[in-house]
Amino acid sequence: MADELEFHRWLRGRAEVGTGVDISIGDDGAVCALPEGTRMVLVADAIAEGSHFLSDDAPELVGRKALARNLSDIAAMGATPLYALATAALPRGCPDDVPRRITTGMLELAREFGVRLVGGDTVSHDGKTVLSVTVVGSVAPGAAVLRSGARPGDVVVVTGRLGGSFPHRHLRFTPRVAEARSLVALGPPSAMMDLSDGMALDLRRLCEASGVGADIETARIPVHPDVAAGPEAIRHALEDGEDYELLFTIGPDAWESVRASWPHEVPLTPVGRITAGALRLVSEGGVGVPWPRGGHVHT
Amino acid sequence: MADELEFHRWLRGRAEVGTGVDISIGDDGAVCALPEGTRMVLVADAIAEGSHFLSDDAPELVGRKALARNLSDIAAMGATPLYALATAALPRGCPDDVPRRITTGMLELAREFGVRLVGGDTVSHDGKTVLSVTVVGSVAPGAAVLRSGARPGDVVVVTGRLGGSFPHRHLRFTPRVAEARSLVALGPPSAMMDLSDGMALDLRRLCEASGVGADIETARIPVHPDVAAGPEAIRHALEDGEDYELLFTIGPDAWESVRASWPHEVPLTPVGRITAGALRLVSEGGVGVPWPRGGHVHT
Repeated sequence: MADELEFHRWLRGRAEVGTGVDISIGDDGAVCALPEGTRMVLVADAIAEGSHFLSDDAPELVGRKALARNLSDIAAMGATPLYALATAALPRGCPDDVPRRITTGMLELAREFGVRLVGGDTVSHDGKTVLSVTVVGSVAPGAAVLRSGARPGDVVVVTGRLGGSFPHRHLRFTPRVAEARSLVALGPPSAMMDLSDGMALDLRRLCEASGVGADIETARIPVHPDVAAGPEAIRHALEDGEDYELLFTIGPDAWESVRASWPHEVPLTPVGRITAGALRLVSEGGVGVPWPRGGHVHT
Repeated sequence: MADELEFHRWLRGRAEVGTGVDISIGDDGAVCALPEGTRMVLVADAIAEGSHFLSDDAPELVGRKALARNLSDIAAMGATPLYALATAALPRGCPDDVPRRITTGMLELAREFGVRLVGGDTVSHDGKTVLSVTVVGSVAPGAAVLRSGARPGDVVVVTGRLGGSFPHRHLRFTPRVAEARSLVALGPPSAMMDLSDGMALDLRRLCEASGVGADIETARIPVHPDVAAGPEAIRHALEDGEDYELLFTIGPDAWESVRASWPHEVPLTPVGRITAGALRLVSEGGVGVPWPRGGHVHT
């Protein structure tokens, strides 16, 4: 990037002040309000070229994804996103329009979700593009939905459909912020997380955090149409990762309330039950097999 | 890094919960309190290998610096740092001890300043190390000290001494958090920022934000002993960057209060006055020359 100061001027012209934002981009920090009587929810996430996106992906979509992953985490906590900060490490000599296009993609998604981009930093380096985003959200005290609350007998539910997210959907997914808020209002779930590394790994994490197991019915797993039909379809749904759907557990009565009043297009699919035993895949004859060890860890 | 999950386990063992932190590392996000009746101050900053540190710098010092730069920004707003989140993009194949050593350096500085590290993310990529840190602080409503408040007649003051920070001091500097809080309590300053890109560039930014100029007395600029004596010493003090000292402006009466009760070892040096004219360097005979155009922009 030839001129960081010029980029900052461009960015300041797009900074939104008002409604909770006293000071935005242009000073040493931003000054923002947290709604009275709420707690902060803080999430941070980085994406790197080659691992989370490719060199020929549109910078707008890359910026969008960097923010969307954080909004997905905020949703998974049952929180409301408020403010975002972003840093970008850009290749030395990167064209001037790249940081603007990245930011444009972030700002479009931010506006869609009522989030204000209030700060950040750009550095040039001898490497590829790395974006890091932090989002600050709010939640009522005690109302955050954690990974550790699942109890035997709870229904295990996922939003949307799983698998085949790469190479197309992962740049354009809609974070389930509205859906999570409805779940909290109608349920709430006993535990929740977002599916970023594949349900095989992420449900294992939820079960470990809660000290429980689960019987998941293979036939109920909602496989995304992006997954090719065939004997490997279930494995893709469980292990591909980058779904950015919500995985939650919920008591049977609360589940009936949620199912009866669900106001969103995104489907909810009950895929099994939390147990006091191991984490297992159960096929139609009731036979249980050990849960797959796979899943997509970005290392 | 061979095993991101193992690093996360190590990290969770070091997460501090309590006193405002309901949920820390290990869930989709952290849940933290903001002191009643205060505003959030949000800062974000990234450092990259080759630009802000070198491949043979100790990872502990690199982690320390990534956090310290953000604490310096929080100080410059007159705020109190509370929580930090960090993301690291690490070279593929990076030894397992590197993220731990980076984190250890961050945690040591965090404890020193009463800051809790509550979240983050690590990614591996085809590139060098990039660290991004966000800090959340608090400030009383209306009490944040901005860059835009300088008025003609105000005294221009810097903490500490300037220049020669690279290659040694820049990794070990002490962010002026305590000094900034004393300034706010005793003054407050009319405008403030931290000196990261050199006073030549940073004072220009402050003056532009405030719509003022300044007469800076060359003979008063506190040159750091790390700068070699000679005709270039003043230029180094103004343009080397990475000082992480506070630059502030303050009304003459408030300045007398601050100077009379200053409780810190770090010296305060008045270097000139804010004017309604241009930004100038004034030498002993009173002759003014245009302000240097230099300064260290990390691009």
